Amino acid sequence: MQLERRATFVLGGARSGKSSFAEGLIEASGLDAVYLATGRAWDNEMSKRIAQHKQRRGGSWTTIEEPLDLVGVLQRECTGNRAVLVDCLTLWLTNLMMSEKDIETETARLVAVLPTFKGAVVLVSNEVGLGIVPENRMARDFRDHAGRLHQAVAAAAAQVYFVAAGLPLKMKG
Amino acid sequence: MQLERRATFVLGGARSGKSSFAEGLIEASGLDAVYLATGRAWDNEMSKRIAQHKQRRGGSWTTIEEPLDLVGVLQRECTGNRAVLVDCLTLWLTNLMMSEKDIETETARLVAVLPTFKGAVVLVSNEVGLGIVPENRMARDFRDHAGRLHQAVAAAAAQVYFVAAGLPLKMKG
Amino acid sequence: MQLERRATFVLGGARSGKSSFAEGLIEASGLDAVYLATGRAWDNEMSKRIAQHKQRRGGSWTTIEEPLDLVGVLQRECTGNRAVLVDCLTLWLTNLMMSEKDIETETARLVAVLPTFKGAVVLVSNEVGLGIVPENRMARDFRDHAGRLHQAVAAAAAQVYFVAAGLPLKMKG
Repeated sequence: MQLERRATFVLGGARSGKSSFAEGLIEASGLDAVYLATGRAWDNEMSKRIAQHKQRRGGSWTTIEEPLDLVGVLQRECTGNRAVLVDCLTLWLTNLMMSEKDIETETARLVAVLPTFKGAVVLVSNEVGLGIVPENRMARDFRDHAGRLHQAVAAAAAQVYFVAAGLPLKMKG
Repeated sequence: MQLERRATFVLGGARSGKSSFAEGLIEASGLDAVYLATGRAWDNEMSKRIAQHKQRRGGSWTTIEEPLDLVGVLQRECTGNRAVLVDCLTLWLTNLMMSEKDIETETARLVAVLPTFKGAVVLVSNEVGLGIVPENRMARDFRDHAGRLHQAVAAAAAQVYFVAAGLPLKMKG
Repeated sequence: MQLERRATFVLGGARSGKSSFAEGLIEASGLDAVYLATGRAWDNEMSKRIAQHKQRRGGSWTTIEEPLDLVGVLQRECTGNRAVLVDCLTLWLTNLMMSEKDIETETARLVAVLPTFKGAVVLVSNEVGLGIVPENRMARDFRDHAGRLHQAVAAAAAQVYFVAAGLPLKMKG
């Protein structure tokens, strides 16, 4: 499971071990590791999660927090000797929706830049479409946007993994 | 991923690309394509989805709408030179439950006819059992029925695919 | 799909056929079959499910019901000529949470004993992390605990299967 200098997409459920798996890919690459956190510390629960992630990764990672301008940060950071972990796309999507951005446009922008980086990028996201249809309209919209985003990113990525119970299943590449 | 002249079952999450994948199987087959929509246009959201599906498929498909008598339509339409796309089983199940049909009987009828067609049939359905147990009793019943229906159809099908992020994973065949 | 004399983990959705698949593994092993039910008959719905499970397995199985002390029962029962089916870990987790046990400690205890048995053990569990984030705080905690438990058990198991629509997908082993 060597990391290619092209986009890798890691999809999995909540607490599936998808971030750890993605971190392992980057650490094994020998490239300079950058952690791009898209989550905002809205509440204590989220702050605790971000802290746990930092603790697990240790000191050799550079951490950047960016809720919205994922494309801009990737263009600046994903250079020759670096590998960037984007954790995660569903939080980025949440932020875009909260900020009333146009999701199709943002998805298209991301997908367009993915193949252009000199460095490696690993994008992590939550699969959210395998439960009962949510009663809440916004939740239905969210899972529709997430599903379309995942299809677009998977199509643009060189490698795609589905992670369950900490175990990766290669879907592409 | 050639289409066999036997039943193919395509299971996936919401917005997973399962319908597009199924359409691709049928278009690559060279058979006359029939789209069997089981969804009723209950509301604007559903009408919009049906219109999007029609637009994507283009003019070479024949479209039939049938909410309940899936078996009857398949027996009539799934003939020698045709490939029928059933989109989707979970909407059919919803309609059966709304009409207070006996789900076990209807499942058994469908499974019994699947191996008898001269034409090809591709059945698409939503996996709904991988989230938290729903609080709503009807939603719990629905996912129980869906799970049993999926097991029965998968057992009767020659090929089964699980689709995530637009990527197919072959489970059988 | 032969059963090893080491832990096997079977993960799947609701009504995915995971218990039937696990039962088949044990019946094909020729070992003396023990069914360890972790579910409590809280209500009629659960009592009906337990009865259906018993009916399907037939008379050759020994059935034990234990909601909390999974480790103790496994240590006592999982001996040389036996294969124990644990059905299921998510119900055990529910019972632990209801009894305000420390989940990390209980998970660590289970994982520590898994490689020590002379007999075979097959642990079944529900994947619950692939839907929309639940609004209910307890449901979010539950799926976090379940995800961590699944990662730990999968790491300790010799074989891991993911079951969908009655079809097993080997993830490990």
